[in-house]
Amino acid sequence: MSRTRTPIGRQVESDTVNVGEFRFESGEVITDMQVAYEAYGEFTGENAVLVCHGLTGSQHVAGRGTDSGVSGQASAWWSDIVGPGKAIDTNEYYVVCVNVPGSCYGTSGPASEGPDGEPWGTDFPPVTVGDWTRAQRLLLDHIGIGRLHAVVGGSVGGMNALDWAVQYPDDLDRLVVVASAARLDPQCLGLDAIARRAITTDPNWNGGDYYGEDNPNPEQGLGLARQIGHLMYLSKDSMDRKFGRRSAGRGGRGDAYPADPAAMFFPYREVESYLDYQAEKFADRFDANSYLYLTRAMDDYDLAEGYESDAAALSAFEGEALLLSFTGDWHFTTEQSESVAEAFRSVDVPVAHHVVESDHGHDAFLVEPEKVGPPLDAFLIAGVEGRAVTDTASDGGEPDSETDFAPVHSSLFSR
Amino acid sequence: MSRTRTPIGRQVESDTVNVGEFRFESGEVITDMQVAYEAYGEFTGENAVLVCHGLTGSQHVAGRGTDSGVSGQASAWWSDIVGPGKAIDTNEYYVVCVNVPGSCYGTSGPASEGPDGEPWGTDFPPVTVGDWTRAQRLLLDHIGIGRLHAVVGGSVGGMNALDWAVQYPDDLDRLVVVASAARLDPQCLGLDAIARRAITTDPNWNGGDYYGEDNPNPEQGLGLARQIGHLMYLSKDSMDRKFGRRSAGRGGRGDAYPADPAAMFFPYREVESYLDYQAEKFADRFDANSYLYLTRAMDDYDLAEGYESDAAALSAFEGEALLLSFTGDWHFTTEQSESVAEAFRSVDVPVAHHVVESDHGHDAFLVEPEKVGPPLDAFLIAGVEGRAVTDTASDGGEPDSETDFAPVHSSLFSR
Repeated sequence: MSRTRTPIGRQVESDTVNVGEFRFESGEVITDMQVAYEAYGEFTGENAVLVCHGLTGSQHVAGRGTDSGVSGQASAWWSDIVGPGKAIDTNEYYVVCVNVPGSCYGTSGPASEGPDGEPWGTDFPPVTVGDWTRAQRLLLDHIGIGRLHAVVGGSVGGMNALDWAVQYPDDLDRLVVVASAARLDPQCLGLDAIARRAITTDPNWNGGDYYGEDNPNPEQGLGLARQIGHLMYLSKDSMDRKFGRRSAGRGGRGDAYPADPAAMFFPYREVESYLDYQAEKFADRFDANSYLYLTRAMDDYDLAEGYESDAAALSAFEGEALLLSFTGDWHFTTEQSESVAEAFRSVDVPVAHHVVESDHGHDAFLVEPEKVGPPLDAFLIAGVEGRAVTDTASDGGEPDSETDFAPVHSSLFSR
Repeated sequence: MSRTRTPIGRQVESDTVNVGEFRFESGEVITDMQVAYEAYGEFTGENAVLVCHGLTGSQHVAGRGTDSGVSGQASAWWSDIVGPGKAIDTNEYYVVCVNVPGSCYGTSGPASEGPDGEPWGTDFPPVTVGDWTRAQRLLLDHIGIGRLHAVVGGSVGGMNALDWAVQYPDDLDRLVVVASAARLDPQCLGLDAIARRAITTDPNWNGGDYYGEDNPNPEQGLGLARQIGHLMYLSKDSMDRKFGRRSAGRGGRGDAYPADPAAMFFPYREVESYLDYQAEKFADRFDANSYLYLTRAMDDYDLAEGYESDAAALSAFEGEALLLSFTGDWHFTTEQSESVAEAFRSVDVPVAHHVVESDHGHDAFLVEPEKVGPPLDAFLIAGVEGRAVTDTASDGGEPDSETDFAPVHSSLFSR
């Protein structure tokens, strides 16, 4: 390869762009939508890859050791996967990651400045995953990217990626949906609803108006919301391994949350210590109103909305799709990914559903790069025929007794 | 049978007994421990069955249509299982159910009157499952019951029942542990810890001092704790069936929890409506400090505490044991019950682990009486040889490939 390789530090673009007037799915309009993004690598015209971040992630997807200026995100969220020589190789691809509307890392959201010079707060329009996709499209237009080689997203970022195949089916060749689903199940909807109530019942939330210097942030409520979220990302097995029932020692008890005197008779366990630490760390880096807005966008997302079925929604997509799921993930289950795979198969989109054996829970897509990288890398290069890519329809991964006798799905790969 | 059968209404005893000085496991002592109980049926000397209630349950286990005077418990919690002609037949057995220390249905706890005439609040001593067992023993002594035919308990009541076999192994012939475990796993410990933080961060909790007439109760925090608990009792499948992603209609939105204006763009879903309703109902009937105390007792319980292993803890028990578990239960899993069964087997206690196929989650033990009743009934009559009782060691219910070829456990049933 003749392309000049430059050190990662010199390849990072980090900017915030005013894409002008933006009409939200709700019908509300803001006049100056700011969109923050980072980009890595060199654009050759055909090598752009958009990476969609998860719920509380940011545009700072890669670039270990570089200071992005993104609060609390000094360590990029997917630097094990995105970077020079990594699965999404920034020596090969021009990788763009965009902070979504409603978030708090530079793109317009509740904490950013409204028309009156004060933070929007809860006057910011409601945000949907569809709004994220359209803001990303505007940003890409602005920086001169038309067609994308691929859109890749994990968790709710995977919903965002699916939405690309629905809203802009001609704009991408390949779609990678990691640990995601066509819609949340009611168990997760319930947990998200409880998390939001933990925020809105914190008196410091104050109806969403807490941005003044004299006002304390709703740290306890936001921390509780994060603790609920964290448990959704872990599995029983990973928690057994990480914490067991071990005591963190009485000295370890933090002061983030009040307790009654009787609590002192019982151990302060490692699992509590971990959750309390995560709560404090998160409250320092994330905006409580953004957490309300983004969880609602996630809860609201439904691939089939406006269509007769998931398959109908995906039928205009002419590229190839990879679904990655993890056996220990109860937030976004392998069954949910299989259901999306079936939808693709039914409309003759070449798809592979690669199931990763893991007991890490939803976190697996972040913490097991050695299992995520190879199929992702291979798919970006060679599509569903990539060497490290497996598929449930051909490997018997689905507990479908029919497949033992008749490979009923294999013909669906021919278009 | 010649015994006179009297209508259930005339068979119910309901009383609160002062069992005198009580020393808690913590070492703290209170001088007048009140213990509230109900009893059903006629005591013949050998037919007493103690039923242990779950976390927020009460002594009002049976007696549909009778007014127990137990707040919010007009409908008894296990009347499908306990009553005349039911699996625990009050025409045959003298059934006793005792409200546990730390609770709020008549037995001493944080909300009951302390030595100064005011509610104890958080000055009430810390409570353990071991304290529950000893208080039950004192109550039974008081009402003239020595040896028990059986102790039966569900959920944390199953831990309470297990503790009977450890503390008073000679006092019971049969032990029934329903949807329970030797100890909570760290996922449940984490969820319980979050639930407690939701209570203690409610400003109305006020350090546990909210009993005065002018003080509002910490209803929002207690409601959130209950919502977390409720999700632990349900399964993904049961929630799919109950709620799906259906909207409850905008008119259905309650006012128990504040929301920001952007929320109005999105549906108020049935799952949220259900959780909000459960929160309000629960806050009306339960004491927030009791919720702190009782979840801590549950979290703290460890069958092996003070012993080398679960098996060593159970080795003095000379009766028979039945474990009932439910395939859809992720709060107390079938694997956890199997582990307790293995402990019994290893010390040659006749045991059956009867696994119920159910997608109802932890709630199954309450809502599927047609599956719970037959093995329970049969076990109380005939022990592990009861006709409707199955066992994982003999029915291949365990996914252990060895059992396909060698019934390795069957010899353990011979003593």
